[in-house]
Amino acid sequence: MHLVRRLRVPGLVTGCLKSARRSRTSGISAKLDIRGIYPPITTPFNHNEQVDYNKLEENLNKYSKVPFRGFVVQGSNGEYVYLTSEERIEVVKSVSKSVAKDKLVIAGSGCESSIATIHTTERMAEAGAHAVLVVTPSYYRGRMDNRALIQHYTQVANASPVPVILYSVPGNTGLDLQVEAAVTLAQHPNIVGLKDSGGDITRIALIIHKTQKEDFHVLAGSAGFLLAAYSVGAVGGVCALANVLGTQVCQLEQLCISGQWEKAKDLQYRLIEPNTAVTRQMGIAGLKQAMDWFGYHGGKCRSPLCPLSELEAKQLNSIFTSNGWLSHF
Amino acid sequence: MHLVRRLRVPGLVTGCLKSARRSRTSGISAKLDIRGIYPPITTPFNHNEQVDYNKLEENLNKYSKVPFRGFVVQGSNGEYVYLTSEERIEVVKSVSKSVAKDKLVIAGSGCESSIATIHTTERMAEAGAHAVLVVTPSYYRGRMDNRALIQHYTQVANASPVPVILYSVPGNTGLDLQVEAAVTLAQHPNIVGLKDSGGDITRIALIIHKTQKEDFHVLAGSAGFLLAAYSVGAVGGVCALANVLGTQVCQLEQLCISGQWEKAKDLQYRLIEPNTAVTRQMGIAGLKQAMDWFGYHGGKCRSPLCPLSELEAKQLNSIFTSNGWLSHF
Amino acid sequence: MHLVRRLRVPGLVTGCLKSARRSRTSGISAKLDIRGIYPPITTPFNHNEQVDYNKLEENLNKYSKVPFRGFVVQGSNGEYVYLTSEERIEVVKSVSKSVAKDKLVIAGSGCESSIATIHTTERMAEAGAHAVLVVTPSYYRGRMDNRALIQHYTQVANASPVPVILYSVPGNTGLDLQVEAAVTLAQHPNIVGLKDSGGDITRIALIIHKTQKEDFHVLAGSAGFLLAAYSVGAVGGVCALANVLGTQVCQLEQLCISGQWEKAKDLQYRLIEPNTAVTRQMGIAGLKQAMDWFGYHGGKCRSPLCPLSELEAKQLNSIFTSNGWLSHF
Amino acid sequence: MHLVRRLRVPGLVTGCLKSARRSRTSGISAKLDIRGIYPPITTPFNHNEQVDYNKLEENLNKYSKVPFRGFVVQGSNGEYVYLTSEERIEVVKSVSKSVAKDKLVIAGSGCESSIATIHTTERMAEAGAHAVLVVTPSYYRGRMDNRALIQHYTQVANASPVPVILYSVPGNTGLDLQVEAAVTLAQHPNIVGLKDSGGDITRIALIIHKTQKEDFHVLAGSAGFLLAAYSVGAVGGVCALANVLGTQVCQLEQLCISGQWEKAKDLQYRLIEPNTAVTRQMGIAGLKQAMDWFGYHGGKCRSPLCPLSELEAKQLNSIFTSNGWLSHF
Repeated sequence: MHLVRRLRVPGLVTGCLKSARRSRTSGISAKLDIRGIYPPITTPFNHNEQVDYNKLEENLNKYSKVPFRGFVVQGSNGEYVYLTSEERIEVVKSVSKSVAKDKLVIAGSGCESSIATIHTTERMAEAGAHAVLVVTPSYYRGRMDNRALIQHYTQVANASPVPVILYSVPGNTGLDLQVEAAVTLAQHPNIVGLKDSGGDITRIALIIHKTQKEDFHVLAGSAGFLLAAYSVGAVGGVCALANVLGTQVCQLEQLCISGQWEKAKDLQYRLIEPNTAVTRQMGIAGLKQAMDWFGYHGGKCRSPLCPLSELEAKQLNSIFTSNGWLSHF
Repeated sequence: MHLVRRLRVPGLVTGCLKSARRSRTSGISAKLDIRGIYPPITTPFNHNEQVDYNKLEENLNKYSKVPFRGFVVQGSNGEYVYLTSEERIEVVKSVSKSVAKDKLVIAGSGCESSIATIHTTERMAEAGAHAVLVVTPSYYRGRMDNRALIQHYTQVANASPVPVILYSVPGNTGLDLQVEAAVTLAQHPNIVGLKDSGGDITRIALIIHKTQKEDFHVLAGSAGFLLAAYSVGAVGGVCALANVLGTQVCQLEQLCISGQWEKAKDLQYRLIEPNTAVTRQMGIAGLKQAMDWFGYHGGKCRSPLCPLSELEAKQLNSIFTSNGWLSHF
Repeated sequence: MHLVRRLRVPGLVTGCLKSARRSRTSGISAKLDIRGIYPPITTPFNHNEQVDYNKLEENLNKYSKVPFRGFVVQGSNGEYVYLTSEERIEVVKSVSKSVAKDKLVIAGSGCESSIATIHTTERMAEAGAHAVLVVTPSYYRGRMDNRALIQHYTQVANASPVPVILYSVPGNTGLDLQVEAAVTLAQHPNIVGLKDSGGDITRIALIIHKTQKEDFHVLAGSAGFLLAAYSVGAVGGVCALANVLGTQVCQLEQLCISGQWEKAKDLQYRLIEPNTAVTRQMGIAGLKQAMDWFGYHGGKCRSPLCPLSELEAKQLNSIFTSNGWLSHF
Repeated sequence: MHLVRRLRVPGLVTGCLKSARRSRTSGISAKLDIRGIYPPITTPFNHNEQVDYNKLEENLNKYSKVPFRGFVVQGSNGEYVYLTSEERIEVVKSVSKSVAKDKLVIAGSGCESSIATIHTTERMAEAGAHAVLVVTPSYYRGRMDNRALIQHYTQVANASPVPVILYSVPGNTGLDLQVEAAVTLAQHPNIVGLKDSGGDITRIALIIHKTQKEDFHVLAGSAGFLLAAYSVGAVGGVCALANVLGTQVCQLEQLCISGQWEKAKDLQYRLIEPNTAVTRQMGIAGLKQAMDWFGYHGGKCRSPLCPLSELEAKQLNSIFTSNGWLSHF
C-alpha cells in the first residue's frame, strides 16, 4: 500500500535515495523535493465551531491558481491543538482529495508523546499526506533536551511511512530545537527538512551550513524573514501570510530564486508588517480576518481564541492599507 | 445522576451555597472544601509504556495510610499530555474506585480548546471526579489574555457538573494566569479555587487578599513554598513531593495549621531541595525514581521523557540523603 | 582610622567574630547585626536634576521618628546608576552626618568592575558607611557565572574595611545570584548577608537553610513578600515602600517577630499592591510621587526616567486609597 | 573648534544636510557616511588590569592593513563598563591619534543617565571621535519605554557636536530599542544610524524599510547575520569577529556589495560558529583568546570577567580549526 501511495508523491525522484541508506522500518525512503511556498492553511469553522469542509474546499479552489508547491495542513495556524484526533485526520483527507495531484500535502502530526505522534503520523499518511510536519513536544520543556528530542524524532522517523519534516516554533512551544539536534537528525534517511519559525537567521544559516551534505532542506516558517532565509540557503517557506497574499509570497520566492535581490527586497519590505500582524501580533484571529477581506473563508477561531477587537481590526486594516495591499475604506 | 454523585462528595456542606448564586448550567453549586494536601499522582506504565492499573492501585493502597485530603489525578505529574482521551478517563475511574470514600478525587480536565475541556470535564465527573483541575490553555499564549481566559474558564465552569479549580503552572505552560483574571473568576459560583505552581508568593498573597469575600481557596502547587503559602493564607497544597514524602508534607501542613511555625520552618527547609529535584530540576523522571526508592511504583515515563542519567540518579540520591530522608547507600 | 570608625558601628558586638576567622586584608571582621527594616532612600533632585541635599536631610529628619534599623543609601531606588562617582560618595557622607548614631548606614558600592567596586567600597567606608551593599555586576551577564561572581565578591570582601552585603536584584540586572554562590560566599568572614529582591521564596528559604551555620542574614528586598520571608527565616527588609509607609512596614516587622501571624497577614495584604505599584509597576517615579503625597520630598527623577503620566498618577492614588492608606481626593 | 574637527571627518559630504534640518545645539549637521565594516576594538590590559596603550597601538597598526571603514571604540567588546570615565576618554584619544585620517572613529558614549551621556559625548567628540555610539540605558528597563528612550536620545543628539548612532544590544542590556522609537529617532538630523546587535532580521528589515526616506543607516551588530543584514538593506557591520578575522569580514562585505551572493553565502557559513564563539558563547574572554592566536594583543579581561577555562579554549580552537581558519595544533 505504501508503495502505491508513494508512486503518486509529486516531486519524488525515484532511485535518488536519501544518502543511499535505508530507514529501519519503512524500507526505502526516497528523496522528496520540498522546495517552494506553502500556506499553512487555516481551518474554517461554522457558527457551532464545527469544521466547515465546504468552506475549506472553496479556499483550496481559490488557492489552486496560486503557484504554491503544496499545502501544510494542521500547522499551528490550522488550530490543530483545538481539533480532535479524528478531526485532524478528516481535514487532511479532505485536503488530499481537493488539491491537484502535483501539490504536496504536508500534514502536522506532532503530539506530546512519541506513541501518539507515531500513531497520528501513520494515519496522516493513510489519509493522503505526502509528508508529515512534527512539532517539538514541549509541555515538559525543561526535560526536552537534545537526548529526548533526538530519540523522539528518530522513533517517529523510523516508523513513519512518509518523510518527516522537523518543526521548531518557539513562539508557541517555548522551545527551540537545538542546532546540534537538527544536525544529528538531518542524517536520518526519513527526515527531509526543517520548518523553522523562530526566525533567528544566524541559527538558520548554521543549520543549513552543517547539513549541506545531507538531503535536508530548511523552510522559513514565516514570510517576515523569507528573503533573508533564501539569502542564506533556505529553499522555501511555510508562511501564514500566504493564506492571504499567496501570489505575492510566491513572487518573492521567484525573485529570490532568480537572483533579483533588489526587487525582492522591495517586495519583502511590504510584507513584513502584514506578516507580523497576522502572526505574532494578532495571531490566527488576525489571519482569518485578513482572509475574509481577501475573498477567502476566514471566519472565527475555536474558543478560547477570541476574534479581533474592533480596534485591532482597524489596526490590521491600516497595516494592509499602508503597505499597499488594501485600498482605503 | 449528578445529584447522587454529589451526595457522596466528601466535604460537601449542603446548604452552604457558594455566594448563594446558581451556576447557569449545573444547578446549585455547593461549597466544596478543598483544604489539605494532595499528591498529584504519577501514572505507572508497564514495559510497553501502557498504563499499569495494578501498580496504580498498589500505590493508592500505600497512600491510604497518609492523611491526604485526596488525590490529584492527571495533573502535570500524571503525564496527562501523554495519555489519550480514553486513558485519561480510565485512570480517573480506576482511582475513584480505589480510594476511600472520604478522599477527594480531583481530575485534570484541561485541554487546549474550550469544547474539548468541557467534554473532558463532563466525562471526568462521570468517572467519579469530585472536582476538576483546569490548566490554562497555552499553545497560542500570545493571545491567551484575560479576555480569552476568563471566557474559557467561565464556559467550562458553567458547563461543569462538578466544581472547577483553576490551574496556573507557568513552568510548563509559559503562561501565568493574571491576578485580575483569577479574581474575576473567583466570583463564579462553580469555581472554588486555584492551584498555583508558579511560586510567586507576592502574587499568591494578593490573590488570596482579593478573593477573601469569595468561597475561593488557593493551593500551593509545590512543597517548596508550602509554609510560605500557608503564612499568607493558602489552605493546602498539591505537591509532587507528596508522592514520595507524603507523611512529611502532611506533617508540615499540620505544623502550619497549628501555628508551630518554628518547627514548620525546620521541616520546610529539609523539603526544599528534594522538592526542587523532583520537579524543576529532574522532572517526572526524578519523581518516579524517588518513588521507587521509597517503596512506590515509579518506573519509567512515556517517551520522549527519558529516564535519569546515572549521574542524575546519584545527585538525586545525594539530595535525599543529605536532607536526612535516605540513608547512605 | 578604620578602627575609630568601627568603634561607632551600631550593633557591633565586639569580640564576637564572624566564625572566629580573620579576613585577609581588613584584619578582624566583627559581626554586624543587620536585622531590621531599612528604606532604600531615594535621591531628591532640584529642578536642574542636581542632588538637593537639604531635601535629603529633611526626609531623614522625618524618618527619624520611624523605628528603622538604618538606611540603605544608593540602592536601586537611589538612582545610583545616574549619579557620578563623586555624587555617590557625597550623598553617603551627607546621610552619615544626618542620621542618629544608632542607625546603620548601608551604602551601595557595586560597580561593574571589581576594581571600581573595591575603590568605591573603600570610599564609602571613609564616607561613613557601616556596611556596603554590592549588587551583582551584570552587563556581561552571559559570563557572570558562579566562578566570576564568587571571585568578584571575594576580592571585594577581602579589600573592604566594612562588612559586605550581597545584593541580587534580577528585575534590574537580569541576573540572579545562584544559591551555590551565595552559600559559598556566606562563609567569608566579611560577608554578612544578602538582600534578595527577586522574591523567589523557595530560593530565599534554601539560602537561609544552607547558611544557618554562618553569621549570615537575609533581608527581603521588597515589602511585597516581607511576611513570607520572615516565615522562612529572613531577619529584615530593605523595602522601597518604607520610604512612604515606613511605620507600617516596621509594624509588620514587629508582628512577624512577635509571632502575631494573623495580624501580620492582614497588614501584609494591604501593603502588596502599593508596594508593587512603587516598584515593578511604576518604578522610582511612582515611589517619589507617593512620597510627595505622604509629606516627604519625592520630586522628579533624573532623565531618562520620566515622571508618571496623569493616568498612572491616578492609578497610583487609587491603589493607595483602596488599601486604606490615602483618603479619597 | 568643532568646525575644525569636522573638516577632517572622513566621508563628510559637505552641503548634503541630513533632511535639510538643523540640529538645535550643534549648528549644521552634515551627513556622515558610515557604510562599511568596523571592529569594535577590545581594550588590552597589562598584568595589573591597567590599560596598555602600547598594545592598543600595535593592534591598530596591524588593523591598518585591513580595509575597515573605521573603528568602534568602547562598544561592549571594549569593556567600556569596566573603564573609568577618564579611561574611556583616554582610550578614544589614543585611538584617534593612531589611526589613519580616512578611518572613522566611533566612540561609545552611552551612560545610564542622560546628563552623563551628554557629558561623555561632548568629551568623546573633543577626544577625536567622529561619531558616538549610544547604547540604550537599561538598568531601570521596566521604565525604559519609547517615551523615555526617545527623550533620552533626542536630548543627547541635540547636544552632541558629532553624529549619533543608536545602539541596541539586548544580549547585554535586556532591552531592545523598539521599531517605533528607532523610526521616530531616525528623523533627528543628528542621528545617522543604528547598530543592531539583536540579530532579529525581520526587525532589522522593518527598520530599514521605515527609515528609507531618512539619511539613516543600519549596521549589523555581529558577523553572524552580516550577509542576511546586507540582503535586507544594511550597509555595514560592527563585528566582534573583525578583531580576529578582519580581512574575511571585509571580504564578505565586498561580496555582498558586488552581488556575489553565492560566494558570500559560503564565506558567511564559515564565519558563524567562530562569531558565536567569540560573542554569545564565550564573550570577550573568547574574543581576546582568539586575537592572541591571530597575532593581536588580546590578553586578559578586567575582573570579574574570567579567562577561558582550558576546556573552553580547546573548544574555541576547534571551532576556528573546523571552519578552516586555524591549522590543527
